[in-house]
Amino acid sequence: MSERVRLRRKRERGTYERETIDAILDEGLIAHLGIVEDGQPIVIPTLHARDGDVVYCHGSSASRTLRALARGVPACLTVSLIDGLVLARAAMHHSANYRSAMLLGSARVVEDPAERMRGFQTIVERIVPGRWPEVRPPSEKEIAATALLALPIDEASAKIRGGPPLDDEDDYALPAWAGVIPLSLQIGEPQPDPRLSDGIAVPPHVGNYRRG
Amino acid sequence: MSERVRLRRKRERGTYERETIDAILDEGLIAHLGIVEDGQPIVIPTLHARDGDVVYCHGSSASRTLRALARGVPACLTVSLIDGLVLARAAMHHSANYRSAMLLGSARVVEDPAERMRGFQTIVERIVPGRWPEVRPPSEKEIAATALLALPIDEASAKIRGGPPLDDEDDYALPAWAGVIPLSLQIGEPQPDPRLSDGIAVPPHVGNYRRG
Repeated sequence: MSERVRLRRKRERGTYERETIDAILDEGLIAHLGIVEDGQPIVIPTLHARDGDVVYCHGSSASRTLRALARGVPACLTVSLIDGLVLARAAMHHSANYRSAMLLGSARVVEDPAERMRGFQTIVERIVPGRWPEVRPPSEKEIAATALLALPIDEASAKIRGGPPLDDEDDYALPAWAGVIPLSLQIGEPQPDPRLSDGIAVPPHVGNYRRG
Repeated sequence: MSERVRLRRKRERGTYERETIDAILDEGLIAHLGIVEDGQPIVIPTLHARDGDVVYCHGSSASRTLRALARGVPACLTVSLIDGLVLARAAMHHSANYRSAMLLGSARVVEDPAERMRGFQTIVERIVPGRWPEVRPPSEKEIAATALLALPIDEASAKIRGGPPLDDEDDYALPAWAGVIPLSLQIGEPQPDPRLSDGIAVPPHVGNYRRG
């Protein structure tokens, strides 16, 4: 374990178990990717997908963030899932139930054509399993216009908070309601493209879409 | 508008309108806050709340990230809402519908006791409106143990993607289903604290909780 990812506070919430970290990376639909530009941190949301010991991100080959990452600058990728609002009897003990994973490292630009194709496939399949075989695969031109980055799962940690509020012992007698408002991802009814051709039904990988 | 927040790509998705930026900051329950430590970006999830032209965050006075922010280091606060998965006919045109706001700046440590109390109140009330009057207010000791930071909404931008997939003209004839899987925040049935005193009903600010 590196010193940089060692959790220094509230350690009961921290873990370095790969199984836990991987589960958070896999359930989260978006990551927040941090890099530094001229001393200024920049945090951007991005789609991501884990494949074994790496997390892939993609973006336009022309984007400034992707170009900086491609130069191997230090990066931080954080995926957070919010599971509930924790309502305590005391104002300052309000909190959130969440699961969060953080990776530190430098991104590698994927150059190998086979790994590039596999990376793009991984991203599509992690976000909508069953989707890849149904759609037109990338052309050479599309692949050339898209940067694929791989961040190793090496310096990584997870933080998790679950369960009811923790109030000061004296406060349990207060008359306020206390507990958790659960939060989760709601998946709505699929909305067909207005230009969808007639006679194309909603396929199972769309109609039965679930997460986590 | 500063050069640093100017959107350089996909400009049709970008805006600098305060109304749009504020709406994203207000609807999002968590922010991702980026700072730099020894050249390494660190991105942490945090609860946040906007009050006029500032965004407040809080944390333990002992946390390393809060201590760094308190020294006035450059920060980036990003709030992202994911609204749907965009399923195109071509693998590389898959995308997400989202709304994201990004603030750049240096955090100010709030020292004034009245602003500190107002800041903590703002955070609780932005996350669960109606909650503050129901709970025990912060003690002096609790306030002393908690850092309150204010980030100005100054260098700020928003990015939004909405609507159906955009496929290459030739691909519209393909037989794949295309459209959007809508995503939103699902609010579950409130879970009472196992230690809740008898006879305390779920109050309206909890039972009717909605977001956005």
